[in-house]
Amino acid sequence: MTTTPLPAPLRGVVPPLVTPLTPDREVDTDSLRDLVDHLLRGGVDALFVLGSSGEAALLPDRQRDTVVATVVDHAAGRVPVLAGAIDMSTARVVDHVRRAADLGADAVVVTAPFYTRTHPAEIDGHFRAVAAASPVPVFAYDIPVSVGTKLPAELVLRLAEDGVLTGVKDSSGDDAGLRGLVLGSRHLPAFSVLTGSELTVDAALSSGAHGVVPGLGNVDPDGYVRLAQAAADGKPDEARAEQERLYRLFGLVQAGRPDRMGRGSSALGAFKAALQLRGVLAHRTTALPYLPLDADEVAVVRRYLEEAGLL
Amino acid sequence: MTTTPLPAPLRGVVPPLVTPLTPDREVDTDSLRDLVDHLLRGGVDALFVLGSSGEAALLPDRQRDTVVATVVDHAAGRVPVLAGAIDMSTARVVDHVRRAADLGADAVVVTAPFYTRTHPAEIDGHFRAVAAASPVPVFAYDIPVSVGTKLPAELVLRLAEDGVLTGVKDSSGDDAGLRGLVLGSRHLPAFSVLTGSELTVDAALSSGAHGVVPGLGNVDPDGYVRLAQAAADGKPDEARAEQERLYRLFGLVQAGRPDRMGRGSSALGAFKAALQLRGVLAHRTTALPYLPLDADEVAVVRRYLEEAGLL
Amino acid sequence: MTTTPLPAPLRGVVPPLVTPLTPDREVDTDSLRDLVDHLLRGGVDALFVLGSSGEAALLPDRQRDTVVATVVDHAAGRVPVLAGAIDMSTARVVDHVRRAADLGADAVVVTAPFYTRTHPAEIDGHFRAVAAASPVPVFAYDIPVSVGTKLPAELVLRLAEDGVLTGVKDSSGDDAGLRGLVLGSRHLPAFSVLTGSELTVDAALSSGAHGVVPGLGNVDPDGYVRLAQAAADGKPDEARAEQERLYRLFGLVQAGRPDRMGRGSSALGAFKAALQLRGVLAHRTTALPYLPLDADEVAVVRRYLEEAGLL
Amino acid sequence: MTTTPLPAPLRGVVPPLVTPLTPDREVDTDSLRDLVDHLLRGGVDALFVLGSSGEAALLPDRQRDTVVATVVDHAAGRVPVLAGAIDMSTARVVDHVRRAADLGADAVVVTAPFYTRTHPAEIDGHFRAVAAASPVPVFAYDIPVSVGTKLPAELVLRLAEDGVLTGVKDSSGDDAGLRGLVLGSRHLPAFSVLTGSELTVDAALSSGAHGVVPGLGNVDPDGYVRLAQAAADGKPDEARAEQERLYRLFGLVQAGRPDRMGRGSSALGAFKAALQLRGVLAHRTTALPYLPLDADEVAVVRRYLEEAGLL
Repeated sequence: MTTTPLPAPLRGVVPPLVTPLTPDREVDTDSLRDLVDHLLRGGVDALFVLGSSGEAALLPDRQRDTVVATVVDHAAGRVPVLAGAIDMSTARVVDHVRRAADLGADAVVVTAPFYTRTHPAEIDGHFRAVAAASPVPVFAYDIPVSVGTKLPAELVLRLAEDGVLTGVKDSSGDDAGLRGLVLGSRHLPAFSVLTGSELTVDAALSSGAHGVVPGLGNVDPDGYVRLAQAAADGKPDEARAEQERLYRLFGLVQAGRPDRMGRGSSALGAFKAALQLRGVLAHRTTALPYLPLDADEVAVVRRYLEEAGLL
Repeated sequence: MTTTPLPAPLRGVVPPLVTPLTPDREVDTDSLRDLVDHLLRGGVDALFVLGSSGEAALLPDRQRDTVVATVVDHAAGRVPVLAGAIDMSTARVVDHVRRAADLGADAVVVTAPFYTRTHPAEIDGHFRAVAAASPVPVFAYDIPVSVGTKLPAELVLRLAEDGVLTGVKDSSGDDAGLRGLVLGSRHLPAFSVLTGSELTVDAALSSGAHGVVPGLGNVDPDGYVRLAQAAADGKPDEARAEQERLYRLFGLVQAGRPDRMGRGSSALGAFKAALQLRGVLAHRTTALPYLPLDADEVAVVRRYLEEAGLL
Repeated sequence: MTTTPLPAPLRGVVPPLVTPLTPDREVDTDSLRDLVDHLLRGGVDALFVLGSSGEAALLPDRQRDTVVATVVDHAAGRVPVLAGAIDMSTARVVDHVRRAADLGADAVVVTAPFYTRTHPAEIDGHFRAVAAASPVPVFAYDIPVSVGTKLPAELVLRLAEDGVLTGVKDSSGDDAGLRGLVLGSRHLPAFSVLTGSELTVDAALSSGAHGVVPGLGNVDPDGYVRLAQAAADGKPDEARAEQERLYRLFGLVQAGRPDRMGRGSSALGAFKAALQLRGVLAHRTTALPYLPLDADEVAVVRRYLEEAGLL
Repeated sequence: MTTTPLPAPLRGVVPPLVTPLTPDREVDTDSLRDLVDHLLRGGVDALFVLGSSGEAALLPDRQRDTVVATVVDHAAGRVPVLAGAIDMSTARVVDHVRRAADLGADAVVVTAPFYTRTHPAEIDGHFRAVAAASPVPVFAYDIPVSVGTKLPAELVLRLAEDGVLTGVKDSSGDDAGLRGLVLGSRHLPAFSVLTGSELTVDAALSSGAHGVVPGLGNVDPDGYVRLAQAAADGKPDEARAEQERLYRLFGLVQAGRPDRMGRGSSALGAFKAALQLRGVLAHRTTALPYLPLDADEVAVVRRYLEEAGLL
């Protein structure tokens, strides 16, 4: 196990790795290693395991552990590894945080409490208690679609100033709020603002965000790395063109028909099908209760890849 | 460990036990045993641990296990013990189900998946997979305020007909929907419809629901037992009068000031403070990230108990 | 124009009249008069025009006026006529209130503001300003599914105590909240608590609500009148049996297929189709943007009526 | 009355005018004319009356008419005038559309139906029926926070292709969705995509949006015009700097304390107070049920203006 000093701020492309599964729904560690290689070849800056794209909410603890251990081992210090510690409440999150840190994760990513509905003062206390118990830096994960709460900007910024948070992954889809985080943390040069809005990355980076956590980056890491590079080089037109190409490719997440499955089944099924078609994953199995794409739906994914020149 | 055959249908008062904690937030097993005694003295028909009132979402797995083991052991077969298996997804729920059954729970209580957003077909598959893996009967737990999804009546009834579910605990607050479950399952004499709406229990029972799972039943089990008895005896006026008394007592859940804490902190804090004031619990500690009631707020709880003649 | 002193409290069955339309979407005043006769023959206690079932939100002002004038004239003082004054904000509601009162409505029914999102202090001011400008008594209309806000019980009760409101129509579906309104207004003998939850009317009446505003009462006023009478006579089993019959009949509101139309189109289309099949309405036209039921969907409605013995 | 041919596509800064009121809540036409002058001096490209910032939802029809007539007359063809036709349903919207067109509005702006909940097929029919009845071009107004429905991109684009819509004002806050509208309508050179997200305008314009409808543009039109000019001139750093200045100024919308008023009262009160402080409006009265800012809250607004150099 090799730990990697986390850049401060963390910048660039940090794909949220899908979790490859075997047909009997065990972690497919061979495919997971292949996925790490695929992403590192693409030039990504860090790896984020056990996020929403990693089906963290669907994996039992032992599978979560396997994911962290496998990726930490295979990355071998080449890039930092962040691990989601997705659970409902403080003590449960702390358990995940400690296990992930023990297994070598360089940072953890933590949401607001969910299932219970909480007051901002309780969310504040939650992050403080988690950070106090964490051996590694803590990123806040703002994902209201899953947890039912939008992290207030002033709460995130106060926790940043107090050294509780080392960064934020903003998957709220609220680009104006993201701008507020960027402006509000400009005096904290080590604090990292990462966007999870993978369709407006050029805008986020040009407004001062440090990086992006794109689910689609599993499928096309090269594209997101080119996008981030163009933005860093002050070439907004190139960045925009790349974003537009990726925007069109992102249509594959709708491959699963909405009358028969949820959008999570569809998106994760499509990401995994695309990675299987590209030769990275051995299987496209998703975890329960997600439903699998059928052959017609996989054909839709294939068409998107062909149009994007990725096959 | 003694298992208890579950009545079919399960009827009566099934309080969702709070989880007593020590000041350093470990399970206070002495107080938990005292709580069991208090409830059994009150005449309740079964015990439900690790529900929302049990702060299940806030307890790490080892504490959950302690709760199940302690209550199963202390109940010693006098009444059945149901255990919540609250988690985000199928495989994670199955882990909880197996542990609870191993520890002697007589049935488990399972929500729709959460964190991910799911299609009804996925919820259907979730319950089928959980039930297939469960050594004990499964109740559906309909709690949209926590999981973001209302279980469709036709889904619950189909699962009931297929023998997947043995009952439902309806905490949706939708009394018309509850009526639909009662009417729709009348041809399934073993299926149990329990309401979690503790303020309209007389109505639920008179419309054919089999029982109630009242958080306030921790504080005043005798009241709910009297209410259920009056309903069973065909004395609607008595049942209503008892319900109205309990309705007023329920005001104690608002003791925590809303400008400083969430409604979960307030309700759980109030239930535990009331049980401490009544001499059942040694402490009124709640789990993180809940905030504690202050002295003024506890005084509000005391006033409610005094007015109800419970001190 | 005949005004009718409003009973205090208003009690019994107060159907929210659908608004019959001609095929070119003008108010079908002949059918509207026939509907009034149909309802009065059924024994209802008052008439409520321009509620949600009356498609008030879909009718331009001149059509709203025609509805009020026609029903007031045809009712001719036999029962009171309540009129919805459904609009977004204080001044707009006041305009509707004044026109309805000028046309002879005996009371008006007013929601919280919508489109804008409001603070309870603003909702309080809204009702006070509307009542100050209204020549007739004002009922609050609690319909969060349409306006996005649940009226807090303490706000309704404070307005009741201050004489601002003469009653409340609770269409929130929150039967526990309804119980709170009943208990909280028991010292105000003239204040009327009406439920819009047409599937739990026996429970609402036995808990002390004064009346019901059932959309399905357009189709089967006799059923709701029998239900209310049984409740008033202290015959809970009869009330429950009638409610269960009406519960099953209510299934007709799902006649419109959900993949092609909203639930408003379906419910209003079904009510009007049922009334056409029963010979009360000449047409089953609904207002834009509602979509019409097709022949198969109307056949579903017919089946429900046949099963209920209403054809 | 002078009509103005609408540019195709409409581009640039289109402020949604606040509606100045006298202390007795009549339209203050003198101040309204001063506001038009203030905005035209700032260099805006069109005027949008009766939007959410115009308190359209709070104004009775006669006041709405006064607003349209006054602004059309005073603008005198110098820039196009767009008018909101904010109402719940098709027939009601058509009434507003016709009156606004009769009074000289060059285009109308129309939301999805609200109060009723609608299926996409019904929203589609709504826009088609409104456009068929409208003498002037129709913009879709996507404002889910008010109407409860996000307009699906494919619906907007289909209506654009069919010539039903001439543009869209996107106030959904969903910048990824905005990007989809831009990409999806690139083959429709006359279709106008305007953002209502006033805090990410540089990003919206650089991604291809044609213009912005900023409520804060009432207070500082010059700032938004500079921002749009910098974007048009390919100076992203200048655009960003201007956007950041306006972002900070936007903080004034929080001047009203959240424990005593809603965010609409606060924002509209702040805009009007700022315009009064800047000498444009005679009064800062808002319409009912909005609550007024108190002196302390106005002092907060003043501070923001001073810091921005606008006093």
